[in-house]
Amino acid sequence: MAGSLVSEKALRQFCETVLRKLGVPAGDARTTTDVLVVADLRGIDSHGVARLGRYVAGLKDGTMRAKDESRVVKDTSATALVDGGHSLGQVVGKKGMDLAIEKARKTAVGIVTVRNSNHYGIAGYYSLMALEHNLIGMSMTNSGPLVVPTFGRSSVLGTNPISLAAPALKEKAFVLDMATSTVPRGKIEVHNRLGQPIPPGWAVDETGRNSTDPKRVLDALASRLGGGLLPLGGEGEELGGHKGYGLALMVDVLSGVLSGAATGLQVYADEKRPNVGHFFLALDPAAFRPLDEFRRDMDRIARELKDSPKAEGQTRIYVHGEKSFARMEKYRKEGIPLDPKTVENLKKIGKDLDVPAPL
Amino acid sequence: MAGSLVSEKALRQFCETVLRKLGVPAGDARTTTDVLVVADLRGIDSHGVARLGRYVAGLKDGTMRAKDESRVVKDTSATALVDGGHSLGQVVGKKGMDLAIEKARKTAVGIVTVRNSNHYGIAGYYSLMALEHNLIGMSMTNSGPLVVPTFGRSSVLGTNPISLAAPALKEKAFVLDMATSTVPRGKIEVHNRLGQPIPPGWAVDETGRNSTDPKRVLDALASRLGGGLLPLGGEGEELGGHKGYGLALMVDVLSGVLSGAATGLQVYADEKRPNVGHFFLALDPAAFRPLDEFRRDMDRIARELKDSPKAEGQTRIYVHGEKSFARMEKYRKEGIPLDPKTVENLKKIGKDLDVPAPL
Repeated sequence: MAGSLVSEKALRQFCETVLRKLGVPAGDARTTTDVLVVADLRGIDSHGVARLGRYVAGLKDGTMRAKDESRVVKDTSATALVDGGHSLGQVVGKKGMDLAIEKARKTAVGIVTVRNSNHYGIAGYYSLMALEHNLIGMSMTNSGPLVVPTFGRSSVLGTNPISLAAPALKEKAFVLDMATSTVPRGKIEVHNRLGQPIPPGWAVDETGRNSTDPKRVLDALASRLGGGLLPLGGEGEELGGHKGYGLALMVDVLSGVLSGAATGLQVYADEKRPNVGHFFLALDPAAFRPLDEFRRDMDRIARELKDSPKAEGQTRIYVHGEKSFARMEKYRKEGIPLDPKTVENLKKIGKDLDVPAPL
Repeated sequence: MAGSLVSEKALRQFCETVLRKLGVPAGDARTTTDVLVVADLRGIDSHGVARLGRYVAGLKDGTMRAKDESRVVKDTSATALVDGGHSLGQVVGKKGMDLAIEKARKTAVGIVTVRNSNHYGIAGYYSLMALEHNLIGMSMTNSGPLVVPTFGRSSVLGTNPISLAAPALKEKAFVLDMATSTVPRGKIEVHNRLGQPIPPGWAVDETGRNSTDPKRVLDALASRLGGGLLPLGGEGEELGGHKGYGLALMVDVLSGVLSGAATGLQVYADEKRPNVGHFFLALDPAAFRPLDEFRRDMDRIARELKDSPKAEGQTRIYVHGEKSFARMEKYRKEGIPLDPKTVENLKKIGKDLDVPAPL
């Protein structure tokens, strides 16, 4: 997609100024901006500054509190429960993962769940935080209903992502950051704009069966007629759709049920008070074996995979996170590409709040 | 598949006697038998007594020690590393999960990794153990290379299963127990025996591309020409194959790298000393919220999924574990069905060791 290039610095400055104008304290504006810009830097542009409008709207209508009202409500040496107080999901998410990391540094493991939060951006942001401390990080969140359970016809679960990051030595860290649906809704929207059919395995229409018509899927979702994204593995059980469905449910159990947040259909049921739940884990490899040995063996398995024979027509095998680290390096040097629609959105936000847009 | 029915009791007695004849102490023979028979009771017959021959062979040739030589080599309040000492995987696995549970009962979380172990049976056995203590249980293991990474042509990773169990109140517990490949090798073998093509998304042949010919896939695997099972999501990235590949790698990081076991191609590289790694987690929901509320909300999300509208042609939506609990009840009453090949194997084992077969 052709787009404009913007420098990381200018983009950060813009987002921070916008958030501060809406009453977000400086440190929290920096955190929220960081989560958004890191998503763009890593190439997950669906979760980057393209979503700034969503947070602006949330802050304006009060579904997202500008001041951090989160607090720890339950605490043990290795666990904690945080009530997000309907503050910004990024601010609450970072606080939750910071707490998990602090616990892991003391007792080898930290598990923190969060309730009454908002959309927290990319799951990978929080697992990545663990790497700076040579810890393994894990992050999950539930989200609004978009995914249809196996044999169902309407969406009950979110795209409920799972992220795990583990440090390596010379190789890049392993950073898995995946929605448990086959694809995000954004991919269906792109095919719809281009008038292209979607492959079976991505989504079902209002009949609950595979659809190749992106418009029909989106219309069904919009009018709440049913339909939705398929879990990883596609329709039915033949290609393992029940496994993707099970992973999505696992994420809701750990993020939603365990924290006492809403789950499934209820996450955004109260439009004024969404109740998103998160799950964070930090784990110290040194509690099991010397850190250097762990990191060396992370290199070994990465090399083994990358050096293994390639499929016909392929030249490279990737380890998860590798493409994103490469993009990050490139975009930091050359600028971050933004599509025309995102540029337009940012300009509109800037105009409304009297903040000069970066483009 | 038509088969003979055998009573749970007779099957247990046979397996225990066989294991004891091979020098396994009574308690450990009971544990190993329990893991096998529970697999059959839950309908995962590929991992049930059909595999007894594998353990008999391992005990005979010494790759599996009859006496439990495992020991805890590193220990903190919330974590432990166990060296399996090349003992039976089921015995070591149960010990690892018992330790994780003990820790979770004291400090809310227990994470135990295991190295130098053998094949431990179904991952779900160990997560299920947590339910008796009203804990959430998680279990993962690496395994011999059968799965091809995205864009690769030969298998590097195992079918590396993930299991998570969480207690409900009136509903059955949620028990996810899934290999991270689309299907197990056994399914390819069944199609081969029946002369049926396999669907694209299950496996690749020696070119690394989707194959519908089960014989070609199995031949390539057997002759180590390449080929193998596809990760959940199938070939390439279009249907999310890189996600299934990422999950398989995550399991190897947590089971293999974290414990210092072998990983990827190395798990069975030393035929005389396989070095399988496991990961166990036990987590106390009561550290986050009152147990009853947690269990009530597990019921709520299960009901929400099961009561949601069905796809055209479907009458029921399942929650993971439900089918297995139903099978368990049925088989306990009516007997466990064994296919003719398994019956023949058990008879042969019985004859060799002078133990009357249960059929």
